[in-house]
Formats: sequence, C-alpha cells, structure tokens
Amino acid sequence: MSASKHWGMMISTVVLFAATATAGEAEFYRLLEMLLQNGTLTQQQYDSLRGALDDDGVASEALEAEAPRVAVDTAGGLEVSTDDGAFSFGLGGRLMIDSAFYREDTNDLGDGTELRRTRLEAEGMLFSDYAYELGVDFAGSDADVKDAFIEYLGLWPATIRVGQFKEPFSLEELTSSKYMTFMERALPNALAPGRHIGIGLGSRGSGWTAAGGVFGESFDDDVSDEGDEGWGITGRVTYAPWREDRRALHFGAALSHRVPDETKEIELDTRPESHITDVRYLNTGRITDVSHLDLAGLEAAWVEGPFSLQGEYVAAAVDRGAGQSNLAFDGWYLYGSWLLTGESRNYKPKAGKFGRIRPIAPGGAWELALRYSSLDLNDDDVAGGRAGQMTVGLNWYLNAHTRLMANYIRVDNDANADDDGDVAGDDDPRIIQLRAQIDF
Amino acid sequence: MSASKHWGMMISTVVLFAATATAGEAEFYRLLEMLLQNGTLTQQQYDSLRGALDDDGVASEALEAEAPRVAVDTAGGLEVSTDDGAFSFGLGGRLMIDSAFYREDTNDLGDGTELRRTRLEAEGMLFSDYAYELGVDFAGSDADVKDAFIEYLGLWPATIRVGQFKEPFSLEELTSSKYMTFMERALPNALAPGRHIGIGLGSRGSGWTAAGGVFGESFDDDVSDEGDEGWGITGRVTYAPWREDRRALHFGAALSHRVPDETKEIELDTRPESHITDVRYLNTGRITDVSHLDLAGLEAAWVEGPFSLQGEYVAAAVDRGAGQSNLAFDGWYLYGSWLLTGESRNYKPKAGKFGRIRPIAPGGAWELALRYSSLDLNDDDVAGGRAGQMTVGLNWYLNAHTRLMANYIRVDNDANADDDGDVAGDDDPRIIQLRAQIDF
Amino acid sequence: MSASKHWGMMISTVVLFAATATAGEAEFYRLLEMLLQNGTLTQQQYDSLRGALDDDGVASEALEAEAPRVAVDTAGGLEVSTDDGAFSFGLGGRLMIDSAFYREDTNDLGDGTELRRTRLEAEGMLFSDYAYELGVDFAGSDADVKDAFIEYLGLWPATIRVGQFKEPFSLEELTSSKYMTFMERALPNALAPGRHIGIGLGSRGSGWTAAGGVFGESFDDDVSDEGDEGWGITGRVTYAPWREDRRALHFGAALSHRVPDETKEIELDTRPESHITDVRYLNTGRITDVSHLDLAGLEAAWVEGPFSLQGEYVAAAVDRGAGQSNLAFDGWYLYGSWLLTGESRNYKPKAGKFGRIRPIAPGGAWELALRYSSLDLNDDDVAGGRAGQMTVGLNWYLNAHTRLMANYIRVDNDANADDDGDVAGDDDPRIIQLRAQIDF
Repeated sequence: MSASKHWGMMISTVVLFAATATAGEAEFYRLLEMLLQNGTLTQQQYDSLRGALDDDGVASEALEAEAPRVAVDTAGGLEVSTDDGAFSFGLGGRLMIDSAFYREDTNDLGDGTELRRTRLEAEGMLFSDYAYELGVDFAGSDADVKDAFIEYLGLWPATIRVGQFKEPFSLEELTSSKYMTFMERALPNALAPGRHIGIGLGSRGSGWTAAGGVFGESFDDDVSDEGDEGWGITGRVTYAPWREDRRALHFGAALSHRVPDETKEIELDTRPESHITDVRYLNTGRITDVSHLDLAGLEAAWVEGPFSLQGEYVAAAVDRGAGQSNLAFDGWYLYGSWLLTGESRNYKPKAGKFGRIRPIAPGGAWELALRYSSLDLNDDDVAGGRAGQMTVGLNWYLNAHTRLMANYIRVDNDANADDDGDVAGDDDPRIIQLRAQIDF
Repeated sequence: MSASKHWGMMISTVVLFAATATAGEAEFYRLLEMLLQNGTLTQQQYDSLRGALDDDGVASEALEAEAPRVAVDTAGGLEVSTDDGAFSFGLGGRLMIDSAFYREDTNDLGDGTELRRTRLEAEGMLFSDYAYELGVDFAGSDADVKDAFIEYLGLWPATIRVGQFKEPFSLEELTSSKYMTFMERALPNALAPGRHIGIGLGSRGSGWTAAGGVFGESFDDDVSDEGDEGWGITGRVTYAPWREDRRALHFGAALSHRVPDETKEIELDTRPESHITDVRYLNTGRITDVSHLDLAGLEAAWVEGPFSLQGEYVAAAVDRGAGQSNLAFDGWYLYGSWLLTGESRNYKPKAGKFGRIRPIAPGGAWELALRYSSLDLNDDDVAGGRAGQMTVGLNWYLNAHTRLMANYIRVDNDANADDDGDVAGDDDPRIIQLRAQIDF
Repeated sequence: MSASKHWGMMISTVVLFAATATAGEAEFYRLLEMLLQNGTLTQQQYDSLRGALDDDGVASEALEAEAPRVAVDTAGGLEVSTDDGAFSFGLGGRLMIDSAFYREDTNDLGDGTELRRTRLEAEGMLFSDYAYELGVDFAGSDADVKDAFIEYLGLWPATIRVGQFKEPFSLEELTSSKYMTFMERALPNALAPGRHIGIGLGSRGSGWTAAGGVFGESFDDDVSDEGDEGWGITGRVTYAPWREDRRALHFGAALSHRVPDETKEIELDTRPESHITDVRYLNTGRITDVSHLDLAGLEAAWVEGPFSLQGEYVAAAVDRGAGQSNLAFDGWYLYGSWLLTGESRNYKPKAGKFGRIRPIAPGGAWELALRYSSLDLNDDDVAGGRAGQMTVGLNWYLNAHTRLMANYIRVDNDANADDDGDVAGDDDPRIIQLRAQIDF
C-alpha cells in the first residue's frame, strides 16, 4: 500500500538526515503553484520565489560530491553510517568496577577493589566489504589491545579475518564479558586459547556456524623472546536445532592443535573465578619439553523462556618429548539461569554465542544463576591441583546497558592447589564479589 | 517517487530541528487556514497540503522508535545527544605541553620538556538516569585511568557514583587541571586523597553542596600486594553565601579517615610545584606501623569581578601503634588572581569548585596571579622537611579552550627537605616553567 | 527537474542542517509580503504570521548558539565540522598486522606475528586558528604517544607548532607509515631524529616548503634522568620544480644540530628493516663523552605517471671531547616504484612529502617496488657495523584505506654488524614479511 511505502521512505530518509526545511520547501512549491494558478501570485512573483529556491538547489548540488548522507545515532556510544551502508564508524566502551571480600581459610587473598575492565572500542566499515575493530583495555595501567582485526565481507556469509581476535573455542570464552552470566568465566576457561594474532575463516547457515584459523602469539606474549613464536590451529562448529525467539538448543564442538615457542614450555594456571586476588591456586608451573598441545571442547546450551542451562567440557593433551609420559588435563562446568522478571537469555544462532539481555519492565531484569565448575590439572608428575567451585549469582539489569552483579563462591581446592608452591594447598575460602557494569 | 522524498524530508525536519521546523510547519498550517478562509485556496487544495503534512506527523511518531532525534555538536571535541536528553555521548581530551628551567642551587633538578597531560575522555548518558565517564591519560607512556565511574541520576539532585573518581577533598584538588590558576597544585595537595575506587553520594541545594564516600585504593596502587587493601571514608561540604555572576564567596570543609593496607605503611611526599623534575624535596619516607590517618581541610574563596582570593588549610594526623607518638603534619596556601582583561573567575556554586574562563575580547584574556604555599612534614622522629614557596603566574587565555601559562617559583626548603636523603637539604632553587594547553 | 533540485537541497541540508531551514523562512517571508500586497492576507494576518516567525527566528538563533550547524562525515573514521570551518573534530586510527619469516643464516631471528601499529588519532580545530592533534599507539602493550601538538594557523600559510611531533628531517621519515612504499623505513632512518617535544615554525609557497624548530627529548626518553635534557635544532627545505598531478620532481635538504643530555652518551642502532625480530645488527653501543651531533640529509624524488624514484643520503658527524677523534657515519637508499595498475604516487608539494594512493579500478591497485639501502656505522674506534639491503616489495591496495604488503629482503652484514656483541657478525639472512593494513 502506498501509505506504508511512504513510511518506509520516510524512515530511510530520516535515517539519512535528509533535508530539514527542504521538505517544507516541497510543500511550499506546491502552494506557490496553486497560488499562481488561482491568480493570487503573478508569474513574476512566482518565478522570483522559485528562482531563489533554485539557487539554493544549485548551491547545494555543489556539495553533493564531498558529503555523503550519514546517520548519527547514540545509545551511549556513537554510531555513524552512510545511508548506503558502505561506510560506518562506531565508538563505544565498557566499564566494570569490582570489589571482593574473601572469607579466607588458610591463605591471604586480599580484599579490595578493582577496575576490572575500562575499555574503549572502535569499529567500522569501509567500502562495504572491509570491516575493522580495535579495542583497548586500560584497566591495570597498561594498554591491553583486545580485538584488533580487519575483516573481509566480500564473500558473505563467509568472512576472512586478519589480526588479533579470539580463537574459535569455548562458548563462554566467545561470549562477550558484557554478557557473561557470572562475573568471571568458569575454571575450564584456563584451557581456552583466547586471543591471538592470526588469520581466520568463518561461515554460517540456518542454525549452524563454522569457524577456523591459524594463529601465532598474542601481541604481548614474550616480546623479548628471539625464538620462533608458538602457533596453533583451531576450529569450531555449532548447530542449533531450535533457535526461536525465547527457545533455543545449542550444540558446539571445537578442536585446537598448538605448538609452543622454541622454549617448548607451557604453563596452565587460573585464579579461583575471582580476579582481585592474584593467587592462582591451580597452577602447573612450567611444563618443559612440550612438543605440542591438543585441546578439545564440547558445548551445549538450552534456553526455554526465562530458564536456561549451559555447560562445557574441555580436555587438554600435552605431548612431551621422548622418555616422558604425555599429560591429560580436563575440566567442565554446568550452570542454570533463571530470569525472574521473565526475560530470556539472548541466544544468537548466527554467531553461536549469547548476546545482550534487554529488560522488559522499567524496574529492570533480575537473574538468579547457579554454577558448578571443576578443573583438574593433576597428572603424572605434574601436580597443578584440582578444584571444584560452586557459585551463586544474582544479576540486576538496571537497563540494557547497565547491571549490578553479586557472586558468592565456595572454593574446594585439593592439596596440590598451591599456586605452584606459592601458597598452602587444601585452601577452601569463600568469596563474595560485586560488580557495577556499564557499556556504551 | 519525488513525492515520497518530500514526505521523508519533512520528517527529518522534526528529527533534526524539532524547534524551528515544527514552528515553521505551524506557521505554514496557519497560512493555509487563512488562505482557505479568504477563498484563495479551495478546500481540496487545502486538504491535499494539510494531508501531506499530516502523514508527516504520523510518520515522525512511528519513526522515534527507529532512529532517535540526535543533535551533533563540536567545540573541539564531540557531543552527540538525543533531543529528549535520554542518551548522549561525548568525546574530548586535553593536551598540556610543559618546559621547565631550573636556576639550581645545590641539587641537580634537570631542565627539560614534558607532555604533562595527554588525555582522552569519553562521557555519556544512558536512559536518562545513568551517566558514565571514562578518562585515560597517556603522558608518561603508560595508560593512566583517571575518572572511571557510573553515576545514577534518578534521585537528582542527589547522585550516586560507583567507580574511580576524586574523593571530595580540597577545592584545588577538585578543580580540573584544565582550570587551575597555576601550572601545578600547591604543596598541601600532597595531603589530599585524590582519586580512588569507591562509592559516593552527593547532593546540592541553593548555594551548598555535600558529598561523601567510602573508597578503596586507586586502580594502580600496589597491584601485586596480596594483603587487604587500604580504605578511607571522606566527606566535604561547601556553602556560598554570595554566588552571583561575577561575585562569589565560598566556604568549604572536608574530613577524611583513612586506614592503610596490611603493610600499615604510608609515605607522604611532593615535588616543588614543578613536575618535570623528579626530586621530591618534601618526603617522609615510609612511615611504618600506621593504624590510621585523619585529614581535615578548610577552604575559602572570594571572587569580586576580575579579582579573586583563594586559600586552603590542610592538616593530617597519623595514628601509630603502641609506644610511638602520633604525628601531625599540615600545610596551607593562599593566592590572589587578577584578570587584567576584566573577566571573572568562574565559580560554580552547584559544584563547589571553579570552572572555565571565557575571554571577553578577541585578543584573549590575561591573568596575573600570586601564590604562597607552605607544607610542614616534620614531626617527632619523622623529618620529611618543611618548605615555603612563592609563585608568580601569568596566564594568557588565547580562547576559551587554549591558554599559555608561565610560572616563576621561589623555593625555600629547610634542612630536612632532602627527598628522604636522596638530595641535599636547604636547597633553594628558582624555577621558571611554561605550559601550552588546549582542551577539546 | 524539480525532483533533482530537491535531491540537491536535501544533500545541502545534510551538510548544513539548519541552513536551508532559514532559507525556507526567507522565501516564506517574501511570500507573506506578496500576499499582503495583493490583499490576500490582511495586515493583521500578516503581522501575526511575521510575529510568530520572528519568535521562531530568535528561537532558532538561540538554537544555533548551542548547536552550531555541523557536518558529519565518515570514511571509516569520523569527521565533524561546523559549516564555518571554525570548529572541527576528527577521530581515526590505523591498524597494521605483520608476520615475518626469517631464512636464518647464523643467528636466530625469531619468526612470528605482531601488531605493528594499533593507533587511535584525534585531531581538530578550535576558533578557526587553533588546531590540535593527539595520536596514541597501543601496539606493544604500552601507550606510546605519537603526534601530540597544538598548532596556530593565524599566520597562514605560516604555522607555529608546540608539542610532540616529527622533527623536519628526511622525506621517508616524514611520510606517514600509512603511505610508506615498503613495510619499514630504510636503514638510514636510524639517523633521523623522529618525534620530540618542541616548538616549530613552518611555511610554504608555490612548490616550496620550509620548516624548522627547537626540540627537547621525546616524552619517554630517560624519564628518570635528573640531568638536563638533550636538545636539538633542526630545519628542512624542499622545492618541487615540477608538481603536476601525475608528474613531480622533489628536492629536499635538512640539517640538525643536536646536544645530548648530561650523560653525554648517544647510541645509534637499527633493525634490518624488519620489526618482528629484536636483533639490531647495526649498533654502535653507547658512544660516550659526546659534545654534539650534526646531521645532514639530502632528498630527491621523481614521479612520472605510474613510475617513481626516491632516494636520500644522510650523514652524521659526532663531535667528542678533547683527545678523541670525531666520528662520521652515513647511509643512503634509492628505490623505484611502479604502479602496475596505472595510478601515480601522490606527491604533496605543499607538504613536501607523499600521501595516499587511491586505486582507479575496483580490483584495487598493484605496486611493485625495489629498494637498496645502506648504512655504515663503522668509524675509528666505533664498530657499529655496516649493512647493505635489497628489498623487493609488492603492494596490493584493496581500496584507498586498505592494503596488503609483501617484502622480500636480502641482508648483507659486515663482521661488525653484531648488535654490539649480542649476536654473530657477517650474518646474511633473508626475510619474508607480510602486512595487512587498514586506516580509518
């Protein structure tokens, strides 16, 4: 219907910041014509008025070349894009302020406060086919480059990425820290590769995603080391048999083959899902003479309205030189979430991960979540420790961009969980941590 | 085709220049009515013109969901905001380039140049009630996070802040470095808490402000320390019996109670109001076994047209463990400023601090200022040193965002002012320092 | 056609949001007058409409005051400017992702990947006459401030700069890394002063440029050193007898007189035109007791359609204290470039350097380049080494802002090229390095 056509046109034009008063002038033209017809205006008067407006048009045509039609938008951050979508630029960031209180058992963990993430992120599009992203985190007084890549979109839905980005491994790792259900990722995340510099391929179909890449080291790995860098090859596939608005079922699997740098050393360690302390109970220390490391991950997630379940299992096999047995480590987590106010976790089947939760009611959204996670870094001669942790999480989404989080964690460490000897083992502290978060 | 363009254009009138455009349309409506009444237009013509415009109104309603009406502004930096004020984003920064020449007396201070501040600052508003600010300074090659907080405005004029920001203590500390009368804050600033991570409450009334908060450590205080963090509780009230445009009288008082971290150590030191040298003549060295520290500050400022006076007194009481006497340190400063070109220092009664000076004449504004400051860090067994400094300052405000500053400082140190033994005491250098500053 | 005019006007208002609005009102006024004259409107009706509009005018004036008419543009980054050009703000950046493969000879160079540059850059204009620029690079995990200066344009074409920027020395140094023909600058660049904090003057005429300045140290040179900073005075002139679109001839000469800081030490070194390795074959080590250093540079470049030649010669004379002979080092490079797809290197006569290459065909531009560079740091008792390197470069400009680069380098080091003893001399590796680059 023609009216609805109008709406469509209008919206697009508006998004183009199209002419402010020219519209008025359009009506104005028609009025002048009418007034001319009914003799209220003389042809001369009419022409002079028309003429003046034409000059206008001429003048403005000169400008056409240099200034594309752009839309500007803000939802906290900034988004600028040309109407043809060929060019865009966005600037945003995230701010997370944490505090932690440790009911210490044996070791001193150190209550305190922290800026967990203070990040600025720029992203954009050039000539339709070339996208880029550059994120830098300033928490901790250095400048920590996060995503920093160029993406080619000319083969859409297939994409090619070059730069630093997350290797496609682990649902929880790939889900942005802005949208994590708990304040920190679960213990098995210690085995996920995370961000490295490399080249990656990705594609997607109805309900499935596939991504793979070859990666070197991240931008700040042993910069002084003159030996050849380590490298890895990683791939992940996901499938979502159900993927409706408030109902989704997700399965994923990932593999990674990794070769350490010339030192042939690796170290696996992790904090107790709390970042303010620097104690890393689980810590293998330097494992030497490593020829390569293989990782495997399995993912599943189920969303049913306000309820959701998510779990992962990650296994690592360390292949060592002649005369030494290989090592096997593994971990898993399982959690359930209930959005008390009726929202639903936002599963994104085209990305194979979770996204932003938007509160329904003005009072915001409330989420209650329970997680158990376990990681075992003990094997053979390596006593990295084993831990199981239970976390209760309560999230208050004040709005789509702001939330308050509270986590209560029960830590159960074995005797080897001694941070490679730096602290006493068998330490079972309780942790209460709070976060205020905003992203823009 | 061309018609639907008109509609589109019309809406964006509303979108961008709601005020003018709708007014314009209003006049247009009324003209059409008149022309209808006096028979110049037929009912049909009238309707068609009206009709077009009505579609418009409808459309622009439908539209608000799609694309909020945003205004874009630049005064060097960038300011984007939706017309309802619910969302906004701003990006700016400051750049200060210094050079210093030391007429050395005993010790080597090191003439040189410096980027004193190279800061980028993002701030914005989300959903009307949630504001944020994130500033990072890059001078000195690391990334130094400054203000980084989330603010809740829903209880306006009461506000709640969470994150890293300046504790409410000291008029000169709270006044932005962009607006300071002298290149560096006065000696007693060594006793002001400055920025820490915490939660704060603030409110204001006609002529008064009150702010208080509980704070931990700043984001880069001893990050490796596993002991519990130190903390502090701080409050400040201000009152301005006069608060007219060019005439103001300000009184302020602040208290802070501070508990050091588990090391129970504190150190108080300061440079001689000159930042290029690293010599901190006044330096208590590590004071150990400190149970807590109490601070008190008194402020007064008087603005009378181009003339102003400002002064503060700050006292610190250090409470030490059994068997050791407590310590008392204090300092004060007093300065006068004369805006030779007739401008007046911009006191902001609602914030209880000073703001931007805008030159009247195209030639810019000239300011002459004189300051005496004193700090005494000697007490009992602690010989941190005592100094008195006289500074003559000349500022040329090229425009509201750019200024040149020149300071001449006479330093008078006592025998204990030896940077905790690193340099010779009784050093009385003269300092000439220059700054070029721009903020955007 | 009226439709096309509307388009024109629509675009004009994209550029000057409020502009045509006021124009529209002007026509509206004149129409009212006509309608009054021909008796269509009564004086009363006329006045009421006029009155309303005047209020309006006032209102819209008020509006302009708070929100000037701004143009928003994006070509990847962001550009905002007021229509009078008095204020502007731009935000952009660059991202370069490298990988290097070393066919090692004697020493271990370390294959690997790297974020070569991850830079954000803000620039703008205030009150027509004051420009600023602030660029920070985050590659390498610290925040490396690049250009950070204030520029006064009130004496155009003469300009005054204060802050940190590149000393005017060397065509290749002054040409942005975004536009370099090869991945790294040639060996003699080790002798170019680069960026320092200082004050500079520049001017230009038809085909010539002249720039000079006095400089201290860069923002991160030995920050802890208490001795007086080093300083330098540098000047450069360029002349382009031919300066047509695809045809240019450039000559340049520069001098620099430099005094080291109180340590009286200098060190000259450079990597083998490859940044991923940290081996600096050519390295004089600490040269002590240096009273001053003099640099001289000669430049020439010739552009003839798709072909271009560029070369420089740089000489350094080190003046040492009594009883020690002075030292002389020098280097040169010469390269040729052929844009296979017919573009021409973009020489900018007003800046005396090269700029962006814009591909003609949608398939992008291809460039083949060959460079020989040489640097000799051996003299007298200083055995810094001598090297000659041949590089073949292939660049694919995917679009004006994105390119892929490949360099193959043959390194020929002498026996002294041992990184001041850290590696073996006479090492002649081959280097293959790749880059993906985007700037916005």
